[in-house]
Amino acid sequence: MFIGAKAVAGTVGQVSAVNPATGETLEPAFRGATVDQVDEACRLADAAFDTYRETTPEARATFLEAIAANIMALGDELIERCMAESGLPRPRLEGERGRTVNQLKLFAQVVRDGSYLDLRIDPAMPERQPLPRVDLRLRQVPVGPVAVFGASNFPLAFSVAGGDTASALAAGAPVVAKAHPAHPGTSELVGRAVQKAVADAGLPEGVFSLLFDTGYEVGQALVAHPAIKAVGFTGSRRGGLALMDIAAKRAEPIPVYAEMSSINPVLLFPNALAAKAEETAKAFVGSLTLGAGQFCTNPGLVLAIEGEALDRFVAVAREAIAAQPAATMLTPGIHKAYETAVAELAAHDQVETLARGQSGEHFRGQAGLFLTSAEDFLANPVLQDEIFGAASLIVRCPDLAALRRVVEGLEGQLTAAIHVVEADYADAKALLPLLERKVGRILLNGFGTGVEVAHAMVHGGPFPSTADGRSTSVGSLAIARFLRPVSYQDLPDALLPDALRDSNPLGLPRSVDGRRQG
Amino acid sequence: MFIGAKAVAGTVGQVSAVNPATGETLEPAFRGATVDQVDEACRLADAAFDTYRETTPEARATFLEAIAANIMALGDELIERCMAESGLPRPRLEGERGRTVNQLKLFAQVVRDGSYLDLRIDPAMPERQPLPRVDLRLRQVPVGPVAVFGASNFPLAFSVAGGDTASALAAGAPVVAKAHPAHPGTSELVGRAVQKAVADAGLPEGVFSLLFDTGYEVGQALVAHPAIKAVGFTGSRRGGLALMDIAAKRAEPIPVYAEMSSINPVLLFPNALAAKAEETAKAFVGSLTLGAGQFCTNPGLVLAIEGEALDRFVAVAREAIAAQPAATMLTPGIHKAYETAVAELAAHDQVETLARGQSGEHFRGQAGLFLTSAEDFLANPVLQDEIFGAASLIVRCPDLAALRRVVEGLEGQLTAAIHVVEADYADAKALLPLLERKVGRILLNGFGTGVEVAHAMVHGGPFPSTADGRSTSVGSLAIARFLRPVSYQDLPDALLPDALRDSNPLGLPRSVDGRRQG
Repeated sequence: MFIGAKAVAGTVGQVSAVNPATGETLEPAFRGATVDQVDEACRLADAAFDTYRETTPEARATFLEAIAANIMALGDELIERCMAESGLPRPRLEGERGRTVNQLKLFAQVVRDGSYLDLRIDPAMPERQPLPRVDLRLRQVPVGPVAVFGASNFPLAFSVAGGDTASALAAGAPVVAKAHPAHPGTSELVGRAVQKAVADAGLPEGVFSLLFDTGYEVGQALVAHPAIKAVGFTGSRRGGLALMDIAAKRAEPIPVYAEMSSINPVLLFPNALAAKAEETAKAFVGSLTLGAGQFCTNPGLVLAIEGEALDRFVAVAREAIAAQPAATMLTPGIHKAYETAVAELAAHDQVETLARGQSGEHFRGQAGLFLTSAEDFLANPVLQDEIFGAASLIVRCPDLAALRRVVEGLEGQLTAAIHVVEADYADAKALLPLLERKVGRILLNGFGTGVEVAHAMVHGGPFPSTADGRSTSVGSLAIARFLRPVSYQDLPDALLPDALRDSNPLGLPRSVDGRRQG
Repeated sequence: MFIGAKAVAGTVGQVSAVNPATGETLEPAFRGATVDQVDEACRLADAAFDTYRETTPEARATFLEAIAANIMALGDELIERCMAESGLPRPRLEGERGRTVNQLKLFAQVVRDGSYLDLRIDPAMPERQPLPRVDLRLRQVPVGPVAVFGASNFPLAFSVAGGDTASALAAGAPVVAKAHPAHPGTSELVGRAVQKAVADAGLPEGVFSLLFDTGYEVGQALVAHPAIKAVGFTGSRRGGLALMDIAAKRAEPIPVYAEMSSINPVLLFPNALAAKAEETAKAFVGSLTLGAGQFCTNPGLVLAIEGEALDRFVAVAREAIAAQPAATMLTPGIHKAYETAVAELAAHDQVETLARGQSGEHFRGQAGLFLTSAEDFLANPVLQDEIFGAASLIVRCPDLAALRRVVEGLEGQLTAAIHVVEADYADAKALLPLLERKVGRILLNGFGTGVEVAHAMVHGGPFPSTADGRSTSVGSLAIARFLRPVSYQDLPDALLPDALRDSNPLGLPRSVDGRRQG
């Protein structure tokens, strides 16, 4: 573990990663932090906050780039350890590393650009009648130290130096990260890369700490700690709800950005289905089984109108699923939860099993495709529960009106995919306002998997897909999660932050009386 | 009450406003809504949402301006009814009406400007290696219908058509308002002005409803209603916490923007105090007793270093308070709560009563000035409790280090005022980072009362001053409370919202690949 500049071993419990491809236990074992160590990391973060948040844009951007360079410098040791701990294949992890590094670089660009600070100046009007107007200036400041929980399914891009860490550090917030117990070795390597960047930049050590946990105590203590002012989490609904509950019960409640549960409906419109049932079915199975289905944006639900075209779709999808080799899942626990959930779905009275993929040894998951009717789906809310893995449920609707009712009955989602040809546009357009209420990203003739790190990305959506649908965890807008506005009234230049001084010494974009300058 | 286009009388309980200046009960009595009527208003709001949120910027801005014009057209009837119900004097209410109308006009300008939509386009890159980049476009959409609770202390600017209503309507969110029972007649008049604007603009009736409540049932049912997606509230800490609790326990938790409690510390730095103790004391008492002290930004706490200069400040403040006539408070309940809280403060072992203002008949409050030490203040958290009215506590600190400890011990606040001359700048600068953590607005050589409606205003701060310190309730940035981002991937022009179509038919500002255009 890393508590500020120190590397320390934990003393609580013991956890070893397991190679899910072989069942082999990986050395060394890791032990968890004590509550005192959580407190120490949080106090260091608090002590580092005022210095870190006033670093110049250039210094902070350079620091983010140094983290990216240090992660690349870990070389193959990182990829190999990560492969062993996650069962994920090399190309996927090399791609994920690239995405992680690009996120850090994107936020370096965001920090240099400075628009995220939303700098506003309303100059004084001493002559205004009946009362003079004061001088008012506004900037966004970071909320304070942030707790980041590593996710199981992205050991790099959503973990120790993943999206939440990158956006929090970009905002000027120190980070106390909690490693996911499934990949402690990967976490340690990445943690070291961040720690080295902190030291090399001459920043206060508390800007970053990394803690291990063998149970729930460390995470709970982190979210409850008075120095922590926001939480980033990607994981199960149960886990996210537990953190939301702790955060709401604090003397000072804090925001929790928990990404929890999404089944990402795919809507097959009639003309598109008629025109390309077979190719859509193949693409669907490809997206569903990618990475053993372990993506938050995995297509877990397909809505379509019954008939000959849907029958063709089902026939091709069945065949593709049945041919699907078993795929190694991330952890023994995830594998077990998947198989249990799929067995329950298969046993449901209103659900027909269309196909199962091949089975395999160790912790390999067997893909699954299931069918139900719109009426039964609406009558059985349990059919909406996310199954984390390569399982999907097709809901056969008698007509578009029934399909609409199914969408109305859905909880909040990260994504919705609409499959259309031009003849479907009118029907799709009529459904878009409803989809906008339900999801964070609407996409055309594709699937939600493959989340671009960009300015216009939203990876977030109404509850329960995320705890707070006003934000995204991917893309440059994610920085807004960790900011709050402060206004300065009549402060002289000598007391104003540099970003708001008359001479604009940092050369940042600002608006004056509501009009953007520069 | 107004439920959509209907004017209906309530049937639950009965409430009459009381003229706090005379004790006279005002006719007519008003009755509260049933839970069924709450449901009806919320369903209408939900039904109106998709139409209302897609109104053009021009149509929505014109609608906001029509509300403003309709409020002005109520003429003296509004002012007179409001004077009778609130005990506030005519000039104050005419000023508040001006502010209310200006808020609506400011949001019309914000809507026309369109920057709040944060429109972002990342064009496709079909040739990118190793994978093509999709086309991504982002806009902010309104969260859904908003429940707005009228406040007792601003019967116009924070009530039926006050800041929360203006920013929600500007964002494209229908509003279900709950009138404050202290000023039902004022609320009815303003509600009629809004309703007329809805009808004249040809908008769906559910864009606005106004409900009365004689207890807590209507408010609770509103916050719990599935169609409501956010809450705006200004009132007591107990009331705000109750609403936060209801919102957190919903099947779908929603954001609550509750402004609850703030004592707005005033920091008198040594050189400033030495140079102008007397004039600062006079200005302080003026701010403290303005409007019978019934402002959220009332200076309820003064921190200063003990010594001759503070003695001079105290002497002048004592005299000014003692000469202060009793001032009519907003309601009998507020008057009673004020006198009870002041009596408790006066009876506290560690508190000395420096002065009380004159007493008066009916519901007039008697100003109060009290003194304690830094040590005692820190040891007695109860001394931080807000007293709503013209009472303030001076905390005598042995030195700047003690003053800093007092600030460290404070809860979140709306404002902090620093009184300095140039010789104090270094000390003030050292304290600013701490103040930024604690408050939403820092102001120099003044007092928090007088909240400018502007682009750079923040009227909000860390908990408990507001439930959600990431936002403001006053100024153009308040629109962000009621928005969430949605991303569109690969949608053809025919399916994109106008704001994101290639031709930019609405002529709105957008950023492309992170670079602002136009």
